[in-house]
Amino acid sequence: MSILNDINNPQDLKKIKKENLSKLAKEIRKEIVNVVSFNGGHLASNLGVVDLTIAIHYVFNTPYDKIVWDVGHQSYTHKILTERKNKFKTLRIHNGLSGFPKMSESKYDSFGTGHSSTSISVALGFAAARDLKNENYNVVAVIGDGSMTSGLAFEGLQNAGHLKKKMLVILNDNEMFISQKVGAIAGYFAKLLTIGMARSVEEKIMRSISRFGSFGSPFGKFIKRVKVMLFPGMLFEEMGFTYIGPIQGHDINNLVILLENIKNMKGPVLLHIITKKGKGYEHAEKDPIKFHSIGKFDVITGKLVQNTQNKELTYTKVFSDTLIKLAQNDKRIVAITAAMPEGTGLNKFAKCFKNRYFDVGIAEEHAVTFAAAFAADGMRPICAIYSTFMQRAIDNIIHDVALQNLPVIFALDRSGLVGEDGGTHHGVFDLSYLKYIPNLVIMVPSNENELQHMIKTALNLNKPCVIRYPKGVGTGVTMDKMPFTLQFGKSIVLRNGDDICLLAIGNHVETCLQAAYLLEDKNIRASVVNMRFLKPLDIYTIMKIFTKTKKFITVEENVLIGGFGESIKSLLRNEAIIECIGLPDKFIEHGDIDLLRKKYGLTSENIVAKALAMF
Amino acid sequence: MSILNDINNPQDLKKIKKENLSKLAKEIRKEIVNVVSFNGGHLASNLGVVDLTIAIHYVFNTPYDKIVWDVGHQSYTHKILTERKNKFKTLRIHNGLSGFPKMSESKYDSFGTGHSSTSISVALGFAAARDLKNENYNVVAVIGDGSMTSGLAFEGLQNAGHLKKKMLVILNDNEMFISQKVGAIAGYFAKLLTIGMARSVEEKIMRSISRFGSFGSPFGKFIKRVKVMLFPGMLFEEMGFTYIGPIQGHDINNLVILLENIKNMKGPVLLHIITKKGKGYEHAEKDPIKFHSIGKFDVITGKLVQNTQNKELTYTKVFSDTLIKLAQNDKRIVAITAAMPEGTGLNKFAKCFKNRYFDVGIAEEHAVTFAAAFAADGMRPICAIYSTFMQRAIDNIIHDVALQNLPVIFALDRSGLVGEDGGTHHGVFDLSYLKYIPNLVIMVPSNENELQHMIKTALNLNKPCVIRYPKGVGTGVTMDKMPFTLQFGKSIVLRNGDDICLLAIGNHVETCLQAAYLLEDKNIRASVVNMRFLKPLDIYTIMKIFTKTKKFITVEENVLIGGFGESIKSLLRNEAIIECIGLPDKFIEHGDIDLLRKKYGLTSENIVAKALAMF
Repeated sequence: MSILNDINNPQDLKKIKKENLSKLAKEIRKEIVNVVSFNGGHLASNLGVVDLTIAIHYVFNTPYDKIVWDVGHQSYTHKILTERKNKFKTLRIHNGLSGFPKMSESKYDSFGTGHSSTSISVALGFAAARDLKNENYNVVAVIGDGSMTSGLAFEGLQNAGHLKKKMLVILNDNEMFISQKVGAIAGYFAKLLTIGMARSVEEKIMRSISRFGSFGSPFGKFIKRVKVMLFPGMLFEEMGFTYIGPIQGHDINNLVILLENIKNMKGPVLLHIITKKGKGYEHAEKDPIKFHSIGKFDVITGKLVQNTQNKELTYTKVFSDTLIKLAQNDKRIVAITAAMPEGTGLNKFAKCFKNRYFDVGIAEEHAVTFAAAFAADGMRPICAIYSTFMQRAIDNIIHDVALQNLPVIFALDRSGLVGEDGGTHHGVFDLSYLKYIPNLVIMVPSNENELQHMIKTALNLNKPCVIRYPKGVGTGVTMDKMPFTLQFGKSIVLRNGDDICLLAIGNHVETCLQAAYLLEDKNIRASVVNMRFLKPLDIYTIMKIFTKTKKFITVEENVLIGGFGESIKSLLRNEAIIECIGLPDKFIEHGDIDLLRKKYGLTSENIVAKALAMF
Repeated sequence: MSILNDINNPQDLKKIKKENLSKLAKEIRKEIVNVVSFNGGHLASNLGVVDLTIAIHYVFNTPYDKIVWDVGHQSYTHKILTERKNKFKTLRIHNGLSGFPKMSESKYDSFGTGHSSTSISVALGFAAARDLKNENYNVVAVIGDGSMTSGLAFEGLQNAGHLKKKMLVILNDNEMFISQKVGAIAGYFAKLLTIGMARSVEEKIMRSISRFGSFGSPFGKFIKRVKVMLFPGMLFEEMGFTYIGPIQGHDINNLVILLENIKNMKGPVLLHIITKKGKGYEHAEKDPIKFHSIGKFDVITGKLVQNTQNKELTYTKVFSDTLIKLAQNDKRIVAITAAMPEGTGLNKFAKCFKNRYFDVGIAEEHAVTFAAAFAADGMRPICAIYSTFMQRAIDNIIHDVALQNLPVIFALDRSGLVGEDGGTHHGVFDLSYLKYIPNLVIMVPSNENELQHMIKTALNLNKPCVIRYPKGVGTGVTMDKMPFTLQFGKSIVLRNGDDICLLAIGNHVETCLQAAYLLEDKNIRASVVNMRFLKPLDIYTIMKIFTKTKKFITVEENVLIGGFGESIKSLLRNEAIIECIGLPDKFIEHGDIDLLRKKYGLTSENIVAKALAMF
């Protein structure tokens, strides 16, 4: 007899007896494991907060009360409980449910997200607006220990402590950061745990000491301070929060009682709970990193259902292998990641060069400025950050790196469309947010072999360099044995043809070659240029082609505004006829990458159609 | 007899007897006051650290040891002591000394800056590079209490505490933030001061308590914790730093002794010193906010030497007055600043609407995400941040505001060239870093009257809006009594003429009108369009003009790459002949704004010349 069967919204949930909530949690875990095993998604983080989410919805009155999920990769239970149970099987599928909270998807999603560490700022904004409007809803932010390492979270905390608005921040501490020892905050959280366990002993000591004097006397004041010390959470207390914790986060009944009490507290409260990533699914408990963000897998064995394509060489692996190869002979190389060792492939580098590897936590801004100092001191830092997360550190690129022309190398993985993670994660703005920065070299490899050469090239330039490359496997091209230096700022004409010129940057060089082949059948001879460099642009080659043909098509996996195509339009004189293919001026939804590429015309068929229309 | 006379570099300084250092400080203060009274600059912050700077250079061995100045608006003494004494009179003048540290200016400037809160990350990068290279120089970061409110500083602190590298962070606490009560950190610093003063009493208590047990026993461990508590700086201690302070920051001899001791300490140390902004110059001590960044003034009276122009209406004042006017009848309006109440003009708003005003500290990222939550809750937040500082919060605009189409209004003051503050401060990238963001409306007023209407217009749109406007006074146009709503996305044709069309955005509409007038003499009839909106672009009007003329000149005070001109080039078909005037692909140096505008062709003369060349 399923409990979940009868629950479609939080009102239904409140009808359940407290003692049945654990059973419900079990059912929800099963549903999540099943759906993610088919659709892929964030598994470990979602399994960790099933109990917490049930407790929150049991106690609070959503959507009037507002829950703000940090990152949002733990909102599956929330979605199931808030009128989306029947759609849950469409998770992360095009036109189906998003893998993250989304205001346009449900009134229960009070704020959308995908990037980390925004929840405290958002919750504070809600709380401040509430007080100005004389309303009385509750605001609850749920944030992981990893997200706490970001400066944005600190800025939110410190403004919240200052404004003293009634709000609850739940620190969901799954000890990921403790095990990985990233940042001083991890050590601090670990200490809190120890203090928490030792507390009962200390309470006894406290009581015995308190005999020395009342709280009014000078010595009493001293004791008051001692009291604060004895209770953990000083850092949060210093920031103006009332700290409660650490509390075991899988005992739903206990959480319900606790939240009911906290609901009546004034001012900002930080509740520190300890949860286990992957809770309730053995394979995920054992390997939470593998099950953090995972593709299709077998529920029984926990093994990934590999499609053959996934076995091929990814850009990430080429980046990782090349860097290790080059670092063996170049002691200047250091590698920096912002909490993405596996995603960027730097985990392997870390094993080979422990001292030359730096994981700074979810702190992209610091990562870039930290890298700049290495470069100013003669080293060659490689800063590997996903395209979408680098949006956090644009000022650091401008002000700390480019302005001083420092040779930092930025490896922007997951550029272009990323598929199922959707609008918050597509790396489709980077060419636009980088192009206008003076001194910056911007390279875009057309395949995985070119990627290795670009890393080598960047190391030989005494300038800030960006290399942006896509998610997933390369084209399957033969890899050269050793990376070599490419000619600076030079494109490659891959094919000659005087009727039309296809100018491509990055992974769509291949698409253009296919299009050129198809155009042959229509008796149109197309040249194809692999641009390689967005900056500096190979003006010489383009102008040379311009003497032969006036028709151009540009192709890029970036928004058209401010991108590669605009640069070409800006360059060529008025006799040229230019069509630009790229992404439109909107946030691209989630869905399979190839499906999205088809939908937005990043295909050889569309290039052919555009070309034919020009004749 | 001047001591400063004999000092050209830190080696000379080391020859001075300790007891003469205070006299030197006095001479340097006089020199700074004199030069700033002529050239303008940051006065209060520089006077506050004269003693500290002398002590650092007396103890440390620069440039081998590296000093990293945060923000850099306190580096004048440093410049005077490091081979730039004779050039100091050229401070902030075109081709003269920069007002900030600059690597290309001196080997003593280990890292350039201008924006806040980068110094800890930089110092940590230097320390980490040093250890990898087996060198042994010292690294000293000097950071103000205001800069500590930024998330970037926190990210740096927490990575430094984790890596445990030998480095010194000097927290220069001038209590600016305490007096303004911005952020929980201010309260924390204030508490440190109190604790610091009470310490001697507590030390006595400590000693008496320590009789109870040795540090090895369980009770001893408890006492060890008490000890940590009794000494202030817990927050920094928790982050992994050894905390020393608070110390009076104007006693040079004491500072010298202290720094000599700290030089031998291991791991990261935070030295907390208390200084007085404007120290030694009475007028600046009394009004440090006025003397923070100041123009030409009279040394005796402390009064500004106003040129007549300065008395006219600035864009900042119009923004401030309009917002107050509109907020009286629109309760949805709240105003948010990131530690710039005077600069943005929101200090007046704060006086009128205390509850609806939020100064979040130097925390641009939080400011934007905080604003997004207000908008999601039905309010109309206005987030006023300088163009150059908004570079810090681009991801927050993309991910928290634009993606969810939330009606936050961004008021970007100091857009375009800002003059003497130079390359770190020019707001010449904003059109490029905003243009590609979907859902965003971008407005640029051509004069101060249009600015008031744009604010009103933004409030009536249910979309995220940016209004970018320049530093300084407007055109002197007659102001309408009340702001009204402009037609959405519509440009204004100010002048008709079928030979050429001058398309301008923002403050260069005026320049174009002058050029059109000059072109009349050459028998060229120019139309002039005030674009008003960069996004959405008024395609209809441009295409209509295109039926009459094929010649266009665009003018913008932004880099050309990714800017307004590129949008026009991208829009118009191949018969058009388009010249774009704007800033080149380089970081623009410091200097008088009008001088820079002339140098880079933002003048009617250059427009005329370009136009003539097209015929």
